[in-house]
This record gives sequence, structure tokens and C-alpha cells, in this order.
Amino acid sequence: MQTVDLKHAYRLLNHGPTVLVGSQHAGRSNVMAAAWAMPLDFDTPKIAVVVDKSTLTRELIDASGVLSLHVPTVAMKDQVMAAGGMSGKNHTDKLARCQITTQTDPHTGVPLVDGCIAHMACRVLPATAHVAGPHDLILAEVMAAWADERVFSHGRWHFEDAPPELRSLHHVAGGHFYAIGEAVQALPVANA
Amino acid sequence: MQTVDLKHAYRLLNHGPTVLVGSQHAGRSNVMAAAWAMPLDFDTPKIAVVVDKSTLTRELIDASGVLSLHVPTVAMKDQVMAAGGMSGKNHTDKLARCQITTQTDPHTGVPLVDGCIAHMACRVLPATAHVAGPHDLILAEVMAAWADERVFSHGRWHFEDAPPELRSLHHVAGGHFYAIGEAVQALPVANA
Repeated sequence: MQTVDLKHAYRLLNHGPTVLVGSQHAGRSNVMAAAWAMPLDFDTPKIAVVVDKSTLTRELIDASGVLSLHVPTVAMKDQVMAAGGMSGKNHTDKLARCQITTQTDPHTGVPLVDGCIAHMACRVLPATAHVAGPHDLILAEVMAAWADERVFSHGRWHFEDAPPELRSLHHVAGGHFYAIGEAVQALPVANA
Repeated sequence: MQTVDLKHAYRLLNHGPTVLVGSQHAGRSNVMAAAWAMPLDFDTPKIAVVVDKSTLTRELIDASGVLSLHVPTVAMKDQVMAAGGMSGKNHTDKLARCQITTQTDPHTGVPLVDGCIAHMACRVLPATAHVAGPHDLILAEVMAAWADERVFSHGRWHFEDAPPELRSLHHVAGGHFYAIGEAVQALPVANA
């Protein structure tokens, strides 16, 4: 796992993967799945993610002001499905049931989910308060980012050169995902 | 092109495709590319998309209060790249230069981009004003949605049963995209 330059952090989400959201507060931590996440700014890097106000994850993020985002892999499909379908409110042993293990980021305290190909440690932006009322949107600044150099190097994904089980997941509905697919190169733009 | 039930509209963006953003106001219309778009709510369906305040697209959306989102295909990679790299402010004939043609949605007036596998006609939410200051985020309600039944039917994408050139695009950087890939099915969650 290599550190990603913050100016390239947006690229970890640019291709639209389903993510895992990590949270912790006062000794309690959780991991949930979310398909609704995207970059919000380049530099300083920011992200937007939708986290329902009824979830334990939301309670922990609101209390601590920090969260982590992770890009899980095809190999983790059942863990992602379980993390999205099971509530940490109903099961205090949710992570064990989901077969998810984590490390702790020493700087922010957020959980870093083992097996993912990218991680971001984030701090909630104060502006979130303005949109948190009617919507479930969290806006956050990326404080640090890491990626698996087998699939992300020199500021870019290289899925085509790595084992297929390391590809990112893209959720449709009901546990039906697509893996990210073949590389496609467009022509450069003349006279932009 | 079939109408998509509004309760399934979020699924058009759920797997994280790069989109085209259509706009029009007072006889001027434009289409740009955006990788930072996601669903924001299920029903009524809402979306979030980042559109830089310096763009013609943003000016037209701010003036009209409406926009369209489109899911372009592998076959459209050069059009998407051109639409993202060329400014409508510099080229009044941008759409012709990008080889993009459009129809007009009779209800909202937004351009519907030919060749895309999904379209959404959207209305900007008043709440956007709260976040438009520091960020370039637009929040909008989906008024109507359509999808190409060769790849989207019964409320779900079916890329695996369609020609590869109809797959969605997922941008990394600099004209380097991935097509959406293989279907992956996760196990159902027991005792959620």
C-alpha cells in the first residue's frame, strides 16, 4: 500500500466504484457499503458521499467528524454485500459477521479496511451542515490517501495489468455488481 | 428508448458512469462531460453533479434551472473526450465540432444527446444555493428518465447481453477510460 499524492486522490473515485465507508467514535467503529460517492474537488481534494441519517455510520461520523472511504475489490463482493445489507445498530459484531478486518489510521483514528485497493482518510467539512437537513450528503476533505501499487501507480489505475479479482466493484442493485472492465483510450482533443 | 420508472432512475447512475451534461437557455445549448455525478435520493429521485462555475454549462443551468444527464457509450469515447476538453465559451459550434447531435425534451427544453444509453431530464433544487458558494455542486430532481432497452430493462442494466460498444464509460484521466466489465453476483445477506 503506497501513499497517493493528494493531487491525485480524486482519481481513486473518478471511475465511479462502489465504496466502503469506515467510521469510529468513542471506541465503537463500523464499516458500511455505499454506491453514492464521488470526488468534489481536485486540490485540496474533497469528496461527497451519501450516508443515510438512520445509520450507525452516520451517527459515528457526525460525532467524530472523520470518516474513511475505501475501494473494495471483486474478491470482496460478499463482504461488500454484507456490509451494505447488515446494520451495525442491530449487530454489535457486524464486522466479524461480515468477515471484515481493519487497521486504525494513527492520525485520524478511522478504520482502514483490509483487502481494499484504495483508502482515504477524510475530515467532514463544516459546510455539510447546510445540506445535511433535507439530504443525506456528507462533504469531506481528504487528509491522506493510499492505494495498492499492483493496480494504482503513477497517479493512475492499471487494472488491465493486474489479477481480475483486484478490479473495483460497481453496484447495480440487489448484490448484482459489474467489475470495472477493459481499458478504452479516446483521441486527444484538437483546438480545445 | 424506453421510459424508466422514476423509482428506478437512480440505477442509471448507481454503477458510477461518466456522464454528459446537457443545458440550454435562451436559444443557446451545450453538452459537456462530467465524471463527478451520482444519485442523491431514490424516490423522488435526485442527483448530484459537479459543474465548474467557469463553464458555459453552469451559466446555462443557473439561468434556466434545468439540465439533462446522459450515460454515453464506448462507441462515443471520442465525443465524450471532445465534450470534456472543449469549451462552449470558446466555440459556438462546439457540438458540431464534437460530432454531437441532440433532440429537445419537449417538457423541460433540455437537450437529449443522441447515441447515449440513458437520459435524465432534471430540475435544479433550490437547496443548491446553500452549497453553490464554496463548491461547484448542483443538486437536482429527476423529472423524467429514459434508457436503451438493449442494455437497461426491468429496472436494471444488462450489459452482459448487449454489444460491447454499448457499455458505459468510466473516466480515469486524460482520455483514459475503462468500459464497465463483467457481471459479478454477491451472496445474499443472512440475518441482516
